[in-house]
Amino acid sequence: MEYFENNPRPASLDSHIALARAFIDQHAEQNRRVALVTSGGTTVPLENQTVRFIDNFSAGTRGATSAEYFLESGYAVIFLHRQFSLLPYARHYSHSTNCFLDYMAFSSSGGVVIDTEYQHQMGDVLAKYKKAKHDNTLLLLPFTTVNEYLWHLRDLAMLMQPLGPNSLFYLAAAVSDFFVPADRMVEHKIQSSEEFHSQQPNGNSGEPPAAHMEGKRLIIDLDPVPKFLKLLVDKWAPHSMIISFKLETDPSMLAEKSRYALKKYSHHLVIGNLLNTRKWEVLFVSAGGGEKWLRVPANRRTKSVSGSRPEDAGKDSEPAVEIESWIVPEIEKLHTQMIENGDPRELALFR
Amino acid sequence: MEYFENNPRPASLDSHIALARAFIDQHAEQNRRVALVTSGGTTVPLENQTVRFIDNFSAGTRGATSAEYFLESGYAVIFLHRQFSLLPYARHYSHSTNCFLDYMAFSSSGGVVIDTEYQHQMGDVLAKYKKAKHDNTLLLLPFTTVNEYLWHLRDLAMLMQPLGPNSLFYLAAAVSDFFVPADRMVEHKIQSSEEFHSQQPNGNSGEPPAAHMEGKRLIIDLDPVPKFLKLLVDKWAPHSMIISFKLETDPSMLAEKSRYALKKYSHHLVIGNLLNTRKWEVLFVSAGGGEKWLRVPANRRTKSVSGSRPEDAGKDSEPAVEIESWIVPEIEKLHTQMIENGDPRELALFR
Repeated sequence: MEYFENNPRPASLDSHIALARAFIDQHAEQNRRVALVTSGGTTVPLENQTVRFIDNFSAGTRGATSAEYFLESGYAVIFLHRQFSLLPYARHYSHSTNCFLDYMAFSSSGGVVIDTEYQHQMGDVLAKYKKAKHDNTLLLLPFTTVNEYLWHLRDLAMLMQPLGPNSLFYLAAAVSDFFVPADRMVEHKIQSSEEFHSQQPNGNSGEPPAAHMEGKRLIIDLDPVPKFLKLLVDKWAPHSMIISFKLETDPSMLAEKSRYALKKYSHHLVIGNLLNTRKWEVLFVSAGGGEKWLRVPANRRTKSVSGSRPEDAGKDSEPAVEIESWIVPEIEKLHTQMIENGDPRELALFR
Repeated sequence: MEYFENNPRPASLDSHIALARAFIDQHAEQNRRVALVTSGGTTVPLENQTVRFIDNFSAGTRGATSAEYFLESGYAVIFLHRQFSLLPYARHYSHSTNCFLDYMAFSSSGGVVIDTEYQHQMGDVLAKYKKAKHDNTLLLLPFTTVNEYLWHLRDLAMLMQPLGPNSLFYLAAAVSDFFVPADRMVEHKIQSSEEFHSQQPNGNSGEPPAAHMEGKRLIIDLDPVPKFLKLLVDKWAPHSMIISFKLETDPSMLAEKSRYALKKYSHHLVIGNLLNTRKWEVLFVSAGGGEKWLRVPANRRTKSVSGSRPEDAGKDSEPAVEIESWIVPEIEKLHTQMIENGDPRELALFR
């Protein structure tokens, strides 16, 4: 594919692929299902020595939370995530208004301990984390740019092919639709002052730079990212179950856009969600033609905006529900059905 | 100023200003110096319901590290930071390749404790953090967008005016030079597919939207951010010591750009730094005409890329140095000199 000829292979890829190979081999041997969960937003650097970049909004809550439930369902999880976005288990204590150190206290003997009020819940989380480490069922691989993301997705997918239908792609990352091709990237920080010169891009293709000044204005001109989902479905992972997400802000477009994506890429499931309600409701649009809303009732919603914390909510009513605890078991059922039927493109979802 | 008439006041501002007022009053009474430290990158949302945004690279290391040394030097610190960027003290344990939970273990009685090997260093950090909380010398105020940043900077500066020369501005945040004015912002996610309609911006000014599709390409067209540093120096904080940063990627431009900024804004000090060497060397360019490099020798540099961790480096040689531990005491001396001379614009820096 032309994209991979013209955009540089990331420096981190070799070592990540080596880790993934060992991980996949182990779980293939144990006949365990493997889910590749992508999470967080991708960046589009505007300069080679990056000072400015375009980003996609995502703290990584959906991916990090879902990864925990895939682990609980017995999957091994490759967690391909934006560096410093939320991680499974750690998410309960990061990106919080509480500082890490607020959970700690000095004991009477002067040692650093976890404050009594957090002991119980933290013990539960720590036990699950230690189990995943002990069983080697969670592999954390970071990316930052959309280029790093695309290279990782392709190479991991090809590495997972021997798993056959035991593999699953859960594409929760917020991937940019636009990017700056390597030959249109400038080397140095774009200068805002008219007193300082503008630059030529790195490539010799004669293409104009992706960002330039017009008087006092900055104009950025971005290429479309190639439709990698089509390649994933048809070429890189033809035997896997593939689930993509569609995030919209306008409720009137959600169902239509989700159906459009499913038709265009011919994969198994699109999960549609809206920026403002994504913690409580999602729309499943399936290859079989079935559609279904999953909705958490108002009295069982998690309250925090970033990072779901079930313990924060529903204190006086029923316990709060993370919607991912409903999404993942639904997917597990569909995955089982797909493995048993042997024909991934004819899932009789919800019919 | 026109900017503040045309761009909306952030929802968080009132409560933050109330917190800052109480904080400043307390330290004014105790005749303590107050430093406003800004930290992290600002975002420029491309839609009102933000899915995509432009960002400036900054983990917040410079600001978070410097804030600790200002506290050690006896300042009270208002830490105006990008939400989820590095925080003073907590920075030693976040944005790390280690997960939060890797520091923890179960004790023999089943309680959650800090692993023995981390006890000593974490105890030091925790003690400093608890002292700052106890003395109420550290106020954490978050922002995300460049609009939130500008409103906070203006209102905090005016609130700090009664402190006179006892106040200091340490502007380490990576602030965007460009933005999308409110009347050129679209409401919903920009649609990449040609099948879906483009939108009109919110304003009635007849201005074109800041982002639009041209065929399959996305074109973003940004306005310059007003030169707020000029306003800060001349109007919002005329009696304060003001220090700005200049980040470049091209070594040949650093000194010239730093001098240019100092001349243009007539403040006290520009600290120039390069993206690739910013942890080891900075250039002070002062109002008095003096220039000076601070450089950490190679054998005393911190090793980690994101988040300086002195304990990681120099194990076999001299202890590693965080360059902020040299920057802040230099500034403290200059600030004392300014307070004693009473004329901030005639600092005889390094002469």
